[in-house]
Amino acid sequence: MATEAVFKSWNGKRAMDYRNAAGIAHDLGTAVNIVTMVFGNMGDDSATGVAMTRHGSTGEPEIEGDYLINAQGEDVVAGIRMTTDIGQMGQEIPAAFEELKQIASKLEQHYREMQDVEFTIERGKLWMLQTRDGKRTAQAAVRIAVEMAQEGLISKEEAVLRVTPEQVDFFLHPQFDPDVVSEAHERGEMVAKGLNVSPGAACGMVAFDADLAEAWAKEEQKQVIMVRPETKPDDVHGMLAAQGILTSRGGRTSHAALVARQFGKPAVVGVAALNIDMVKREMTVGDQLIQEGDEISIDGNTGEVFIGCLETMVPDIKDPWLIKLLSWADEFRKLGVWANADYPEDAQRAREYGAQGIGLCRSEHMFFETERLPLFQKMIMADLSVDQREALAGLLPFQREDFAGLFRVMDGLPVIIRLIDPPLHEFLPDLIELMQELADLKLRIRKAATLTEIDDLLQQLRRKERIRRRAMALREQNPMLGLRGVRLGIHIPDLTRMQVRAIFEAACQVTKEGITVLPKIMIPLTGHHNELKVQRDALEAEAQRVMAEQKVDIDYKFGTMIELPRAALTADEIAVHAEFFSYGTNDLTQTTYGISRDDAEAGFLIEYMEKGILPDNPFATLDKEGVAQLMQMGIEKGRQVKSDLECGICGEHGGDPQSITLCHAMGLNYVSCSPFRVPIARLAAAHAALKDGKD
Amino acid sequence: MATEAVFKSWNGKRAMDYRNAAGIAHDLGTAVNIVTMVFGNMGDDSATGVAMTRHGSTGEPEIEGDYLINAQGEDVVAGIRMTTDIGQMGQEIPAAFEELKQIASKLEQHYREMQDVEFTIERGKLWMLQTRDGKRTAQAAVRIAVEMAQEGLISKEEAVLRVTPEQVDFFLHPQFDPDVVSEAHERGEMVAKGLNVSPGAACGMVAFDADLAEAWAKEEQKQVIMVRPETKPDDVHGMLAAQGILTSRGGRTSHAALVARQFGKPAVVGVAALNIDMVKREMTVGDQLIQEGDEISIDGNTGEVFIGCLETMVPDIKDPWLIKLLSWADEFRKLGVWANADYPEDAQRAREYGAQGIGLCRSEHMFFETERLPLFQKMIMADLSVDQREALAGLLPFQREDFAGLFRVMDGLPVIIRLIDPPLHEFLPDLIELMQELADLKLRIRKAATLTEIDDLLQQLRRKERIRRRAMALREQNPMLGLRGVRLGIHIPDLTRMQVRAIFEAACQVTKEGITVLPKIMIPLTGHHNELKVQRDALEAEAQRVMAEQKVDIDYKFGTMIELPRAALTADEIAVHAEFFSYGTNDLTQTTYGISRDDAEAGFLIEYMEKGILPDNPFATLDKEGVAQLMQMGIEKGRQVKSDLECGICGEHGGDPQSITLCHAMGLNYVSCSPFRVPIARLAAAHAALKDGKD
Repeated sequence: MATEAVFKSWNGKRAMDYRNAAGIAHDLGTAVNIVTMVFGNMGDDSATGVAMTRHGSTGEPEIEGDYLINAQGEDVVAGIRMTTDIGQMGQEIPAAFEELKQIASKLEQHYREMQDVEFTIERGKLWMLQTRDGKRTAQAAVRIAVEMAQEGLISKEEAVLRVTPEQVDFFLHPQFDPDVVSEAHERGEMVAKGLNVSPGAACGMVAFDADLAEAWAKEEQKQVIMVRPETKPDDVHGMLAAQGILTSRGGRTSHAALVARQFGKPAVVGVAALNIDMVKREMTVGDQLIQEGDEISIDGNTGEVFIGCLETMVPDIKDPWLIKLLSWADEFRKLGVWANADYPEDAQRAREYGAQGIGLCRSEHMFFETERLPLFQKMIMADLSVDQREALAGLLPFQREDFAGLFRVMDGLPVIIRLIDPPLHEFLPDLIELMQELADLKLRIRKAATLTEIDDLLQQLRRKERIRRRAMALREQNPMLGLRGVRLGIHIPDLTRMQVRAIFEAACQVTKEGITVLPKIMIPLTGHHNELKVQRDALEAEAQRVMAEQKVDIDYKFGTMIELPRAALTADEIAVHAEFFSYGTNDLTQTTYGISRDDAEAGFLIEYMEKGILPDNPFATLDKEGVAQLMQMGIEKGRQVKSDLECGICGEHGGDPQSITLCHAMGLNYVSCSPFRVPIARLAAAHAALKDGKD
Repeated sequence: MATEAVFKSWNGKRAMDYRNAAGIAHDLGTAVNIVTMVFGNMGDDSATGVAMTRHGSTGEPEIEGDYLINAQGEDVVAGIRMTTDIGQMGQEIPAAFEELKQIASKLEQHYREMQDVEFTIERGKLWMLQTRDGKRTAQAAVRIAVEMAQEGLISKEEAVLRVTPEQVDFFLHPQFDPDVVSEAHERGEMVAKGLNVSPGAACGMVAFDADLAEAWAKEEQKQVIMVRPETKPDDVHGMLAAQGILTSRGGRTSHAALVARQFGKPAVVGVAALNIDMVKREMTVGDQLIQEGDEISIDGNTGEVFIGCLETMVPDIKDPWLIKLLSWADEFRKLGVWANADYPEDAQRAREYGAQGIGLCRSEHMFFETERLPLFQKMIMADLSVDQREALAGLLPFQREDFAGLFRVMDGLPVIIRLIDPPLHEFLPDLIELMQELADLKLRIRKAATLTEIDDLLQQLRRKERIRRRAMALREQNPMLGLRGVRLGIHIPDLTRMQVRAIFEAACQVTKEGITVLPKIMIPLTGHHNELKVQRDALEAEAQRVMAEQKVDIDYKFGTMIELPRAALTADEIAVHAEFFSYGTNDLTQTTYGISRDDAEAGFLIEYMEKGILPDNPFATLDKEGVAQLMQMGIEKGRQVKSDLECGICGEHGGDPQSITLCHAMGLNYVSCSPFRVPIARLAAAHAALKDGKD
């Protein structure tokens, strides 16, 4: 550090440090640069200061910094004296300030980057002591990159490459207001600093164990920061309920860090200054005492811990420089960026953020809504097919309206609707809970006082018992690998037929309103080409019927998810019956790895990452060696049969920058991700294209 | 049929049939062969008869047949007159009999096959009317093939190819005694015939619904034949409980046929002559009335249905001709044939049947035994690692003895021991049942009369409640894809370390007894090469420790199951840490296809086969396009790294002839199957080798 400082410094002010450092490192003779020392403390025409050539928080193209008249560098940094804002320098030392601005500009021209400089003025003469690339916030990084390109300092490609997808991610998380943070610092409320392992800001009441954290959060709707010396798998429920996580031990791959990142919770770990007393339910930092229930704030971006609750804010995704930067990114990227959206409001947001289509509308999400779930359950409970059809007929208008809303928002852009995917028992109450309720009901009947009460309870009992029997019959050992997706469509043909009718009735209706509808019907969980053929034939016939009834021609396509290894392995056979492929990498990762995500992400996967067995969570970052290999095979085999086969991805990996690079490399047509991640994906796709062949 | 008969006949006796047949088929002019008719009814020096050149049931090399003096062919076939055994012919018409024997031998020489002939003797002169290859039982097929090769009529290769693996399978199923069947025919007890869709013989009480079938079978330990017009998925529990299945409707791909074959139950379907009256709980066949509870017998090999219970017998797998045939098969096959065996008695049988090693010993099966399960559960329930280690130390001697027994039986042959695979909750009671029991206990406490009774029940409640909590904590959404296999070994290192200690202590002990031990330790469910590396390093260290303690050197190997798509896709990385691969095709099929076998085999897979979506059950016959493609990739990638990498299969497919052909083609070293299927696998492997490149 000291050595580096000397090589960067422009005079001999740090030669002393250098000799010390050299003396510690080894005892060989070393050459020494000796230069004249300059002094900022030679009177009122002397000064010393630090400056950024542009604003490090906002990116504004103005010099930002502090200085002190008649002082040495230590005085500015040490905080002993109150520094002066550099804006004042124009009045106090105008000539030097003018020269400083010229040099700042010259340095930027030379380094083609925003600079962080140190300077001293000795009796009116300006000396530059040091310059280096300046640190900046995500917002500043975006604005600086864009404005430097506009100034002609750098190219648009360089501007795009200078902003990382993680910096765009910053715009999506709550952050502490920078002014509030400054004030907290001034008031001495920043009490400790640890490792910034999971981004975002959070504040809440300190809870020292997972059960309490969960109870406060769930039962009392309180905001909680869970604080532990370190976390274990038993703590996960508390971590999920908390706003943020703080530990006194552990590093970047500790359990707490991994779980927090997994679930997007802000976290600061390894804060050695914390002394947690689990018996007294309190902790001390220096001489500051914090008791359970007291409020604290943590900043996962900086690793800072504050006393009290700091105000948070969500940065503006409509930042004009970000919009400009992303529009440049769009010029360079080869991958389309689509969004996963189930409702019109999601689709609206996706479109605003730049999505070029809906890559995944999960049609069954609509069945979970309050007014529809009873109808859907009626369909499941029906013993007779006539009752089943009646329940489905009741659902049709709802589905039609859902799809119509989506089509209106996505006017002119493609909308991929995936037919029902989950197994039916997901729509019934949980069996274990149901059994608990039945046991309670039986006890209540035994204790009941009046006949009316008994009668009422008996009726409840019978109803629940009927549901229990059905849930028991539908119970599966491994629902992930069970009766779902296309299997369900083949098993209950009326169900997916109703969905396709709803899609086409909506499409016809909206077309008549003058809107351009491009529906793409996606069949999930295909494993064998015959499944796709049988289901598509049945559904396309229904589509034709609706179009004939409505006398409207819709420009539609039928395709399939590729989310089972067998589908990728036999993609040439499957492509015969599909006009597009969409990789469902969540399920494809589950089956390729043989890992149940629900069970593993709070379980052994964390252990694997802690122990270094896996470098990444394969559900967050596409597994290059395994899953991506299958995807590549699927694309190649599919395009052998249909050279223009459209291939995309709709798993969560579609919004992960590292995975997007892989998607670009394997020649996908588009990635589809959550609307919030669309801007990140646009930038990451541009990076992938710009770096292609250069690594 | 009639046309074919004429082309085979040696005179004009069937010219009438031919004209009829031609008349029905079309009205074009047809050429007609006109030959002299011969007559067997010209007095006592005339006769007519049918004969097999060797015995069709046993294969004995003696002419077998019937004849009638002074009769025409119809009289022999129609059963109007009592025929004479052909053995008598030597006395009655010695010259013609001598000539018949000579011609029979000449025909066999010419056709190189056992012949089924018809003959007529007209005034002392023998005329042959027809000859064709004779039908025979499985036993006869084996003996005839072997003896013809020994006689030099055919080569050993031909002999091996003439017997199908299905015929060897016959030796493994119970059959009706042929004499008993003949007698039943004579007594007119064969009342109907249907499609022979699933082999084997069964007898039992008629039950007309699945619930009754299950109740009789499970609660009253009765043998039941389930009889239905046709079966549905709701009937599967009854079919599983029954000895056999009989339906009046349906064909070879009906639900009943598919389920029966799946679970190895004898079945006859599509018996149109049955009139089932579900209201009266009875059925009629012609004028025969059969009521629910009456005994019937069904022969899945022939499709025959009998009144009453016929005696069954298991054919002799130690048949000397079969042993000879299989020894020839061994000369031709390239694939090794190993067996899956968990206990010494299974290993003993496997060895007798010709297994060349144990390809899979499931080490956890031992934990399920009465005296060990409590210890294993103690390990699972332990809160402290010291208690856990104590429980494991208690299990060590049991495991050591199990392995020692296996090693003694397999002296000189390799034994692959797979370390614990299933998730821990499989060793605890079923959660749903546990909750039911807890609910019942609570009700009983409420009703209890004495304090002692209450106290006792409360204790039970507390114990079960503790188990319920643990089972709940271990509960997984998809246990197939959960904390099992190598994941468990990494999570509880002491568990697999105990297993490896037991293996090596047993190996050292048995080596000291002078036995050659070749243990191969197999790590299950590897998905990423790091899992294998970490686990193997830990376990090999333990193995080294035991060998140092015991001062014995064991010739051991470490390898892995390949049962996840990712393992096959990254086999080159995995091979670095493995000395052998064993394909677990049950799990590999589950993950490649995304199908949970437990749920699907009695569910949608049947529906898929009925509808022709899948040609075969992929859990019975290896999926050539998907699973086998992955296997091939795995072998190639593995051998790129280690050219002599030993690759085998230990899934159930290892005993399926069609799958064995694929295993041969992909270059596996061996197949491992259930001991009973070893003879089938030996023959199927020889077929694969002999047909290689000829198809």
